[in-house]
Amino acid sequence: MSTDSQPQTILTGDRPTGALHLGHYVGSLQQRVALQHHHRQFVLIADLQGLTDNGSDPAKIARNIPQVMADYLAVGLDPEKTTFCLQSALPALAELTMLYMNIVTVSRVERNPTVKNEIAQKGFSRSLPVGFMVYPISQAADITAFNATLVPVGGDQLPMIEQTNEIVHKMNSLLGKPLLHSCQALTGSTDRLPGIDGQAKMSKSLGNTLLLSASDEEICRAVHAMYTDPGHLRVSDPGKVEGNVVFSWLDAFHPDKSLVAEMKAHYQRGGLGDRLCKKELEACLIALLTPVRERRATLIAEPDYLMQTLKAGTQRAREVTQRTVDTLKRELGLPIMG
Amino acid sequence: MSTDSQPQTILTGDRPTGALHLGHYVGSLQQRVALQHHHRQFVLIADLQGLTDNGSDPAKIARNIPQVMADYLAVGLDPEKTTFCLQSALPALAELTMLYMNIVTVSRVERNPTVKNEIAQKGFSRSLPVGFMVYPISQAADITAFNATLVPVGGDQLPMIEQTNEIVHKMNSLLGKPLLHSCQALTGSTDRLPGIDGQAKMSKSLGNTLLLSASDEEICRAVHAMYTDPGHLRVSDPGKVEGNVVFSWLDAFHPDKSLVAEMKAHYQRGGLGDRLCKKELEACLIALLTPVRERRATLIAEPDYLMQTLKAGTQRAREVTQRTVDTLKRELGLPIMG
Repeated sequence: MSTDSQPQTILTGDRPTGALHLGHYVGSLQQRVALQHHHRQFVLIADLQGLTDNGSDPAKIARNIPQVMADYLAVGLDPEKTTFCLQSALPALAELTMLYMNIVTVSRVERNPTVKNEIAQKGFSRSLPVGFMVYPISQAADITAFNATLVPVGGDQLPMIEQTNEIVHKMNSLLGKPLLHSCQALTGSTDRLPGIDGQAKMSKSLGNTLLLSASDEEICRAVHAMYTDPGHLRVSDPGKVEGNVVFSWLDAFHPDKSLVAEMKAHYQRGGLGDRLCKKELEACLIALLTPVRERRATLIAEPDYLMQTLKAGTQRAREVTQRTVDTLKRELGLPIMG
Repeated sequence: MSTDSQPQTILTGDRPTGALHLGHYVGSLQQRVALQHHHRQFVLIADLQGLTDNGSDPAKIARNIPQVMADYLAVGLDPEKTTFCLQSALPALAELTMLYMNIVTVSRVERNPTVKNEIAQKGFSRSLPVGFMVYPISQAADITAFNATLVPVGGDQLPMIEQTNEIVHKMNSLLGKPLLHSCQALTGSTDRLPGIDGQAKMSKSLGNTLLLSASDEEICRAVHAMYTDPGHLRVSDPGKVEGNVVFSWLDAFHPDKSLVAEMKAHYQRGGLGDRLCKKELEACLIALLTPVRERRATLIAEPDYLMQTLKAGTQRAREVTQRTVDTLKRELGLPIMG
């Protein structure tokens, strides 16, 4: 990929609305662990954005901040290589949001397809919080504050990148110079991992995923319940691998791709039972998650260490983001009174 | 007034979209000069709010900051008694806005009568900037950040105070304690000063006012052009004082109220010409504005002094406002990483 050829600045992150799960692992955590070695990577815990649809339950957001930090470190994100930071502790992000809000119209954010979908999904209609409507602008503030050039996103988030680049373009035109950096989306190399029940969307609230802290028993229970091919009644019957969650997960997690290919062929021609396939998946999930769970348990027992690590990163992030907003204000002619 | 009996914290201010004029003097500056002796008063230069409808012309906002500072000091606001501060240099205000946005719905801000009127006046319709829609929330952030209990406003701004107290109530309910202070509107004791042309709204852009920097010649020209009683054709005719701008202005500015009362009676029974009334007004405006203009000229020649005064106040304001947002975040359970 061309983006690997020279170091880029990457901004990525999560809303701390719950501990992270295997969907996050496949969709982004794995990629972040790989990217941290050759790029400048910031991982933002987006607590303010978490509040946009949890305004009445701030405690939920607060208690999940160390949970998410433990997940990050347990999967191998390294504080020496990745800068972790907390959104609410970076005032520059709020300041940039306020400045950008003046150059984006209400009808433009209402037209944003990602926002439109999420409004429908969350059933907000007339009770839409202002913060939720503003969140594409807030994301543009996050991305540009870090001068991020590469932003890992799911396909459904591409309109956010477009909105960001629109703001960048508009602000740069206003200033008559390319002060803000435009960014590129980095879409995942892996397909989205389906839920245990076969649904495309995987989430903790749907109960169709596995947390990174899952025990062996939870793993076995989840794999046992996993959706396969409902037409595959006898072991000797030919089975379908498309839409069969066990094979999607084997594709995602099994280290031996040729073994998985053989199993698929065997399953399709008949003679391979669901039980054996599930045993293989169970073993590979246990191998993957046991060390993660153990590291995570050690980490979560040290909340001070987790918060200190987040604080140290946040302080580095504060310098970067404050520089961006100060430069922008100076170019806009606003006095800096720091 | 009951509000005089014990010291209150007052927040007031202006958008730096132009130098201040006699409408500001009557409507608020005079009152601020009086209030500063017995209350804790913050005067906020609302440059961010100025940008909400000047997003494409930030230079206009920037160059009017020292102009407004010169106006303040020229009319007698005293930096020892009043704290001047700059909105864009107080990140806590942006942070609070972001937090409040999550507990206010889009339909609630759209219903705000002040916002509705201003949207119509400014002809925004579909091109409404998000910042403009958010500005009642941003004002609530300003007021609560300073723990202001008394907010001088015009009658058309009362819905803003209501919106602020709604946010205060909602946040305090969420926290289960009265952390944020609710506020009271202080409406002006004087009626609104009509424009030179008799229009109710006075503004620099309508060209129907006098700047505080007006020269004697500009004063005479304005008074000469002033709307009186169009039915008062001969000196001996009875004239009307209602809607007669000369008398509204004499009421507002002439120090000798009994003389003005005599003049009104004489004008109404006939025998007092417009020319004499205008001469009297001219003399009193020249007496009022000459020292203001002279002080202003000295001040505007010292932009460094003006900006240093603003900076010193902003630093004091930063402590107060930062304390509010830090306390709120702590109560919400969000980590403080200062």
